[in-house]
This record gives sequence, structure tokens and C-alpha cells, in this order.
Amino acid sequence: MPTPRLAPEWTTTEWLNTPEPLTIERLRGRVVLLHAFQMLCPGCVTRGIPQAQRVAEHFSREPLVVVGLHTVFEHHEAMRVESLRAFLHEYQIRFPIGIDAPDPAGGPLPRTMKAYAMQGTPTTVLIDAEGRLRQQTFGVHDDLRLGAAIGQLLSERSGVRRVVVEGAPMPPNRAACDEDGCAKA
Amino acid sequence: MPTPRLAPEWTTTEWLNTPEPLTIERLRGRVVLLHAFQMLCPGCVTRGIPQAQRVAEHFSREPLVVVGLHTVFEHHEAMRVESLRAFLHEYQIRFPIGIDAPDPAGGPLPRTMKAYAMQGTPTTVLIDAEGRLRQQTFGVHDDLRLGAAIGQLLSERSGVRRVVVEGAPMPPNRAACDEDGCAKA
Amino acid sequence: MPTPRLAPEWTTTEWLNTPEPLTIERLRGRVVLLHAFQMLCPGCVTRGIPQAQRVAEHFSREPLVVVGLHTVFEHHEAMRVESLRAFLHEYQIRFPIGIDAPDPAGGPLPRTMKAYAMQGTPTTVLIDAEGRLRQQTFGVHDDLRLGAAIGQLLSERSGVRRVVVEGAPMPPNRAACDEDGCAKA
Amino acid sequence: MPTPRLAPEWTTTEWLNTPEPLTIERLRGRVVLLHAFQMLCPGCVTRGIPQAQRVAEHFSREPLVVVGLHTVFEHHEAMRVESLRAFLHEYQIRFPIGIDAPDPAGGPLPRTMKAYAMQGTPTTVLIDAEGRLRQQTFGVHDDLRLGAAIGQLLSERSGVRRVVVEGAPMPPNRAACDEDGCAKA
Repeated sequence: MPTPRLAPEWTTTEWLNTPEPLTIERLRGRVVLLHAFQMLCPGCVTRGIPQAQRVAEHFSREPLVVVGLHTVFEHHEAMRVESLRAFLHEYQIRFPIGIDAPDPAGGPLPRTMKAYAMQGTPTTVLIDAEGRLRQQTFGVHDDLRLGAAIGQLLSERSGVRRVVVEGAPMPPNRAACDEDGCAKA
Repeated sequence: MPTPRLAPEWTTTEWLNTPEPLTIERLRGRVVLLHAFQMLCPGCVTRGIPQAQRVAEHFSREPLVVVGLHTVFEHHEAMRVESLRAFLHEYQIRFPIGIDAPDPAGGPLPRTMKAYAMQGTPTTVLIDAEGRLRQQTFGVHDDLRLGAAIGQLLSERSGVRRVVVEGAPMPPNRAACDEDGCAKA
Repeated sequence: MPTPRLAPEWTTTEWLNTPEPLTIERLRGRVVLLHAFQMLCPGCVTRGIPQAQRVAEHFSREPLVVVGLHTVFEHHEAMRVESLRAFLHEYQIRFPIGIDAPDPAGGPLPRTMKAYAMQGTPTTVLIDAEGRLRQQTFGVHDDLRLGAAIGQLLSERSGVRRVVVEGAPMPPNRAACDEDGCAKA
Repeated sequence: MPTPRLAPEWTTTEWLNTPEPLTIERLRGRVVLLHAFQMLCPGCVTRGIPQAQRVAEHFSREPLVVVGLHTVFEHHEAMRVESLRAFLHEYQIRFPIGIDAPDPAGGPLPRTMKAYAMQGTPTTVLIDAEGRLRQQTFGVHDDLRLGAAIGQLLSERSGVRRVVVEGAPMPPNRAACDEDGCAKA
């Protein structure tokens, strides 16, 4: 099994939803889910970003950080930072978002996208608590598989055997059946 | 943090979808997802069983077993084993299913359901590779949280650091946008 | 365009969810949606019956009646009327249900199913206010198309130009955006 | 019952996805579904526009036209026509779209939005074949209800009794059960 390499540091021009820029270095000790997207990419808007938001919410008490990266590689004029601000506001996206730095040579692909050799958007990257790149997915994994990867990385990080992540299920708590389930009397 | 106790052995009268009866003892070394359901429980049919099937499919190469348990506590006449057989056939459910043994004292709750103090159906139980009861949920957890719990138990079991569970994402592999994502040229 | 024929009268052995048997004759003057199903048919349970329930609810103030027909043609033992009663109770199905009469010659197909030449379950039949068979669909039409067919039959029936069916939308009524929409200040 | 008034003519600055501007006058004889949206309105993107697309597709052989109207009343800078073009391209939206004309007095609400007294976006308007405003909904109606309204307007328009709109259901055509249904042998 190959040894995972350190995740490349990201290169950004600006950060939104955070008082100060984030770096992988500074996030050491926490699992990082990096979600690369474009605000006009349908798969990002309808599936990728909602999944990133679910992760941010479900694991808010765990040592895990969700970071967005706006990796624009087409329609640059339509996805400037002012438009992104309006987008984040309307979609109520609250996790920190870095703006991927443009190619200094003038090419369409931004720098971090290139450094990670991403194939497009959405791309979801998992970085472990030691800063190593552990999984990179172009497209959207189902929640079960993404959850399993997160569970493994959180488990490694803790270094001890912990009771599994608990939390409120979608609860049926009445003495009959409804669409959630059947409770005994 | 409390030490998890061993999962109670289940008590069954019959097994379907398996050449021979299963016991927790015999499954030692593998993570077990036990899905307790009733064939006429709407929450089981529309949400619980499909989730159990997704788990069985997604983790088919991992040391994990999905086991169903038919824990009938109401409408006993309508959910006899002949009806269950037709149900499993029509819904194409392929994982092993044990029939929970009736209460010898004649009460409505079957024996395993009682031993686990289940509140109703669906109930999802996670048992680790050492046979210990690690999580029990009445109702349906979302896939992200269930995935995380499974990922943690699989990770513990392996005892070594493994690269996270990989698998095919829902893939966008063309040079344009579609509902899955946007690929670079 | 062919002239629609009268819908064959149904032949049943028993009725549930109604104080007395229903006949097409007695429903004359109202549009009838006849939903033929089997309680252990997955497509019926997850898609057909919920659609029939949506129709019953959305058009409750219109001259339209939703009628279920239990057309068992396989696993007869598992889908007797006692089991159906438990099923209706658990799934909270409230529209009237007739039990299709068995073939007197002992074949597997019940009589009404045969009279309508249904191909399987679910089958949705639309009968106009004059008792004529206007549409028969094996499988599930999307709601938009089924709605259009119902709207047309209701419109014909009224004989006059009416304002279109009104009703509460899924409403956004605040001065900002949420997942439903954006309201002006 | 009040007599429906004529739908106000729309006032636009530009048209996309059509060789020439559309007017209600020129669409006389056809039912019009007017979908007012903003490209950064989440409820429009995830629910309203997909519904308008479904209508355009399902009724493509009927005398019905789906027309989009970009009624920007906030974040004007982020939703200029260049951005809208990128949006339409990425989301593969093909029906004609008019750009609602800005308020000459400099207010935030564009002119057509004002003329129709729309409360926000998405708003769906149904105009009958005689150019009269028949239904206006802020938010998203479910498909069943919208379909019924369309079916009624199409039925009125034809002036004759027609067999209801037919079309391919989601078809189960094999001799067993799957998620769509159960076919008889």
C-alpha cells in the first residue's frame, strides 16, 4: 500500500466566511474535507455543496473542518468574487471558502486545481490530521462511502478506541407506525 | 467512556437467504450491521431496508456483514414466514434474515427484540469485530452518520492504518457540464 | 380519434375503507382514478400508492374519487384480506379498496384485472364522469402528466369554463431567500 | 367567479434562446407557462426551473409554450446578461428567456415583475390561449396540481373533447417485479 503524500498547500487570492486565511499547516490535527467547486457548476450546486454542508453540520463536534475552494476554470467573467459573495449569501453557505489563485501564465486552470491535478468540479478531497492527502474524488460519492472515509480518518486521529459517533437519528417516538417506523406500545 | 458490552446472542426460529444459521459468535472478526424490521412497517420498507441494502452493496469487499432480523411484534398473522418469503422475493432482498423467536410466555415481543431492548422497528445495531454492541438506533440514521460509524469500526478492526475505503464515485467524465459536474477540457 | 368505450364494471368480493360497495355506475358524475395494486408489489408500495394518495388529497374538493383495487395475481397466500387490512392500517391508506374477485376457473388472474386486460401492477385507470375508460397505464406516470389528464377530465365534466384548480403552493413568504424562493422586501 | 383579465404584456430588454423576441400577442392560440426566476435564487435553481423544464419536455407536442423571464430584483451586478448566458449554458436550459426591463425610475424591481405584482421568485404564471392570466403562483406548486391546471387550459383551448394526453409511462415490461412494478407472466 503506497504511503500517502502530504497534501499540496493551496494557493488563494482571497478568503470568504473566515476572519483569516486558512492553510493546511494551520489545520493540522484536524481532518479536512476540501470541496472544490464553481458557483455555476450544476453538479456542485445541486449535489456537491449540499453534501459538504451536511458534513459540516453532522461532524460539527468532531475534529473536522470543511473548506470550500472556488476553482473557476471556465466562464471566469461570470464567477468573479462579487458574484460568489451573492451566491454564498443566497445559498446560505457558511463554511470558509478560498478563491483559487489564477494561473500566472494566463491559462484557464487556477493554481491549486492544477497542483492537485483535479479533473473538474466538483472534486472532494480528504486530508488527514497529519496533513496527508488520503482521498480525492471527481464527482460526488454517495454519503455512505464518504461517511465511511471520514469515520476512518477521525478514528485514526483519535488514536484511541472511541465509541462511535452518536447523534440523533430521524426519530420515531410514538406508539404506532408512521413513515419513519413502528414503535412498540 | 463506558466499556461496550458484548452484543446479546440472537434467538431465532429459522433463517432465510443463508444455507445455515448465523450467530454472532461465528461472525466474530467481522463488523455486523443487524437490521431489525417488520415486513409491513412502512419506515422499514421505504427507508431502513434500502439503507441496509446499500450498506451490503457498498461494503461487499470489506469485513462487514449485513444481517436482517424479522422482529414481528404486531399483526403476527399477516407476517408469517410464508409472507416474508414472498416479500423478500418481490423486494429482491438478498442478505441473510433470521426470524426472531416468539416469546415463550406468549407476549407480543419476540425474544431478541426483548434482549436488545429495542423500541420498535426499524432498529439498526452495529456490532464490532470483537462481538461488542457499539451502536443501536431506533429509526433511520442518515447515510453520512451511519457511514462514519461503519468506517470507524472497520478501521479499528484492521488494526493498521489503511487507505480509506475507495470505490467508484458517481462519475462525470466528459469535457463539459452535466448534472453530475463540470470536467475540464 | 376512437370513441372511448364504457369502463367495464369491476367484480369484487369485499370492500375496505368504505361503508358499502362502490360501482362505476354509482360513481357516475365524478372522475374516477382506479389504482390496481398488490400489497407486496414494490413499485406499488413505493410509487403507485403514494401517487394515488397524493391525488386523493390534492383533489379532495373536486368531483373526483380515488378507488383502489387489490388485484392479486401471485403469492395469493401472502396477500389475503387479513394481511391487506394490516397493510392498509400500517400505511395509513384511507381510500376505498375493492378486492378483485378470483377467477372462477381457478386461474391466477383475478376477474377485473382480466376484464381490463391489465398487464400487471401498478396500473392506473382514469374513468371520466360519464363512465368511459379514458386512460390506462401500466407502471407509474409522472405527476405532471397524470395531473394534466385529471385536469382535462375535470374540465370536461364541469361543462363550463372554470378558473383553474387553485390551492396552496409550497410557499415562500419571507423577505429573503430560502430553499423555496426569494421574496422581495 | 371573476372574469380573468388579459395578462399584461411583458417588457424586456433582450431575449436568449430564441431568434426573435416573444410577445403574449404573438403566442395567442397557445397556452403559456411563464416562469419568472433569478439565476442566483436557490428555490428557482433547484425546483422552479427543473419544473419548467419538465413542462417544456412533457408537453412538447401540445399547443403550450414555456417562457422564462429573468426578473432580477437583488444582486443586480452578479446577474448581468453575461452571467445569465453562462448559467443557461451550464444548466442546459433551452426554453426562450426574456430579460425583464429595469425600472426607469431606478428602483430595484424590474418592470414586468411590477406589472404582474409578483411577490418574488420563482413565480409561475399560466396564460390561456386567449391571452388571459389564469393562475399566478409564488413558490412552487407540486407537479400534480400544476399538471391539472395545464390539462384544463389545454382542454379549453382545443374546444373539443379530446382523448387525454398520452405518453410513455415509466414502464415495467418484464415478467417479474422490479422497483417499477410487477408484470404478469
